Amino acid sequence: MKPVYLLPCAGAALLPLVFVTISGAKGDTEPKVSSPIYGVTIPEGYRRWELIAPALEAVPLNELRAVVGNKTAIDAYRSGTLPFPEGTVLVKLAWKQIQSTEFEPATVPGDATTVQVMVKDSKKYADTGGWGFGRFIDGKPVDEAQHQTCFACHEARVKGHDFVFTRFAP
Amino acid sequence: MKPVYLLPCAGAALLPLVFVTISGAKGDTEPKVSSPIYGVTIPEGYRRWELIAPALEAVPLNELRAVVGNKTAIDAYRSGTLPFPEGTVLVKLAWKQIQSTEFEPATVPGDATTVQVMVKDSKKYADTGGWGFGRFIDGKPVDEAQHQTCFACHEARVKGHDFVFTRFAP
Repeated sequence: MKPVYLLPCAGAALLPLVFVTISGAKGDTEPKVSSPIYGVTIPEGYRRWELIAPALEAVPLNELRAVVGNKTAIDAYRSGTLPFPEGTVLVKLAWKQIQSTEFEPATVPGDATTVQVMVKDSKKYADTGGWGFGRFIDGKPVDEAQHQTCFACHEARVKGHDFVFTRFAP
Repeated sequence: MKPVYLLPCAGAALLPLVFVTISGAKGDTEPKVSSPIYGVTIPEGYRRWELIAPALEAVPLNELRAVVGNKTAIDAYRSGTLPFPEGTVLVKLAWKQIQSTEFEPATVPGDATTVQVMVKDSKKYADTGGWGFGRFIDGKPVDEAQHQTCFACHEARVKGHDFVFTRFAP
């Protein structure tokens, strides 16, 4: 049980301090703080969502990753539906890649690093391919400058897959 | 839609040919062929189970992996229960690690390689720490010699974690 104090931002000076008690598995009860530009939050319960695929990102990040999706996302992947339907939510979990101490050929997840979210809402996010983006560290969104890079990269590289990198691992 | 013919083994000569039609996602409707020594089968629907953790196995296998578990397994991980309860089932999915063609720093899943299963049944598998093992390629169990190596390695390396390598990725 870890108490977390959320400081209201300067523009909401009348808000009281919010006291949130986090219990249980990390990630399922993150405070609902939204990303700049997009207003995307970490979806509740995502850690229990179905796996789409793992991945590895090389140094300097050096991360093991897993992308999971809500039911809309999984159904779309399984049926090969493109573009992804409204309400699709994808979450990428990432951990430092560390050497297994028990099995030499293996690397395994270390500390969690970022949680990254994509939400499909064609009206709300009409200017960014229908997708809203959120990148979070310890449950808190990273700054606006980082969020300004999301769509340009997805657009340049995977426009033909509805701006989504991850494919379903069979 | 791919028809699969299951040949009855020599010891069951009176069994008719069984005709199974496989449709939908790979892995969810594998024929129920059991592993030597243990009689472990690929559990139905495992591809929809919750993620425990991804991992990477170095060359020569060069595989991205993900371990998922049934509800008993997930509940045990989340509550820190050891030994794992009766009925725990763990499934490791593995894919060749291949270079992403869309993002240079990333490697992603290629072809599926093995599916590996651990089933907790303390009475049935009393001689192997309470665990039955199954290793499958294309839905078919590998040979007895390979299955003879499972427990010795788990016993030597992770006896203190109820013979299970994988930890829950937060």
